[in-house]
Amino acid sequence: MPNPTAAMLVIGDEILSGRTRDSNMHHLAGALTRHGIDLQEVRVVPDRQDAIVGAIRALSPAYDHVFTSGGIGPTHDDITADSIAAAFGVPIDVREDARALLQAHYARTGQHLNAARLRMARIPQGATLIENPVSTAPGFSLENVHVMAGVPAVFEAMLASLLPLLTGGAPLLSRTHRVDLPEGDIAMPLATLAKQYPELSIGSYPFIENGRYGTYIVLRGTEGAALDAALSGLIKLTEGTAK
Amino acid sequence: MPNPTAAMLVIGDEILSGRTRDSNMHHLAGALTRHGIDLQEVRVVPDRQDAIVGAIRALSPAYDHVFTSGGIGPTHDDITADSIAAAFGVPIDVREDARALLQAHYARTGQHLNAARLRMARIPQGATLIENPVSTAPGFSLENVHVMAGVPAVFEAMLASLLPLLTGGAPLLSRTHRVDLPEGDIAMPLATLAKQYPELSIGSYPFIENGRYGTYIVLRGTEGAALDAALSGLIKLTEGTAK
Repeated sequence: MPNPTAAMLVIGDEILSGRTRDSNMHHLAGALTRHGIDLQEVRVVPDRQDAIVGAIRALSPAYDHVFTSGGIGPTHDDITADSIAAAFGVPIDVREDARALLQAHYARTGQHLNAARLRMARIPQGATLIENPVSTAPGFSLENVHVMAGVPAVFEAMLASLLPLLTGGAPLLSRTHRVDLPEGDIAMPLATLAKQYPELSIGSYPFIENGRYGTYIVLRGTEGAALDAALSGLIKLTEGTAK
Repeated sequence: MPNPTAAMLVIGDEILSGRTRDSNMHHLAGALTRHGIDLQEVRVVPDRQDAIVGAIRALSPAYDHVFTSGGIGPTHDDITADSIAAAFGVPIDVREDARALLQAHYARTGQHLNAARLRMARIPQGATLIENPVSTAPGFSLENVHVMAGVPAVFEAMLASLLPLLTGGAPLLSRTHRVDLPEGDIAMPLATLAKQYPELSIGSYPFIENGRYGTYIVLRGTEGAALDAALSGLIKLTEGTAK
């Protein structure tokens, strides 16, 4: 059975303006690969309801899971929860269990649960909460869309709460081989290998080190034995080329 | 006149599997903001022709420019140039000026212009070459799509060749103000300010420092005077809150 598929939607003007360098995409990509879920697309959109709704309506039917990051804080530009509700055409309001979580948290920290913070308890109807062990305000899952915070420490904590609940497939395994040759010298042996092992994905990543070209070759697949066989083949092929 | 708009398409399995952390998005975002082009969407897709063609057909009509990174090297998984040609329905073949560039480069470095390397001279009909001062193999622009390499040093060099040729608008300016208060305490004054200055974009970015919450507030717009007025207003509003 093929692995479940996924897309990610990163929401935030600050990524698109270059002010902030996103790190959640790289974190999610690694975590999903280890869990056996194939991340097949990422989109980054601004804090605009039409952009979020459009992306959710395109991605939700196309993949098994959609993970979002950003836009669920207390300020006026935090419009993700309302946009997700709009995308699915369901009502949204302050939910009592979410309000209770926030109330207890702010009582503990001596802060005031004002109207702005209460917005973080707005949850679309039919959603399930995602636990936030860092700063309490929860994320949520609605249908196959999992809505999480943009602050990396919170995103990572929410993902750690969520991921064990999702069924994964076979984790993607990899073997890496370094060749001290430019990519152009090993392209033809690599194409041969790719034809020989159609079930593996074979990527080549050139680098420059001390002024000399080299290439990392990465074999990916779910079966260790096929990977090991392909790796042996690769070593033989590239030794031949190096001479 | 509003600024030109742009989207970016990042092509590469290695980003989606978490093996490589993309840095071209952040670089492009900053460069476009300084040049007065508004980056409004980013997509990341795998090395699969249907995914690349689908994204190009969605993005090219929707934005003034589309910038791509990745997939233009000599190996079997480098399918970007052919996919762009397919997206626009134009033929693609080795082009003599691109071949001459490669021939001169490899003659100089004592390497062989083999069949794999010659693939880097495949250019869709009607395209304009983008200069690559790092490793010679050119990028290209076809209609409003600018196709560049994935290796960050090469991507950045190609972008530096290309960007002066594109008409920019007013550079996006910003003012940043730090408040040592959690986001939830300043959300309401910020919403007031956002209503007062509809032409500005006002973002708030929470942080934790030595166990205490704080917020960076970033005002963005193209007019310095409006930004300065809003900044004064912001300082007054948040001083009131801090007491």
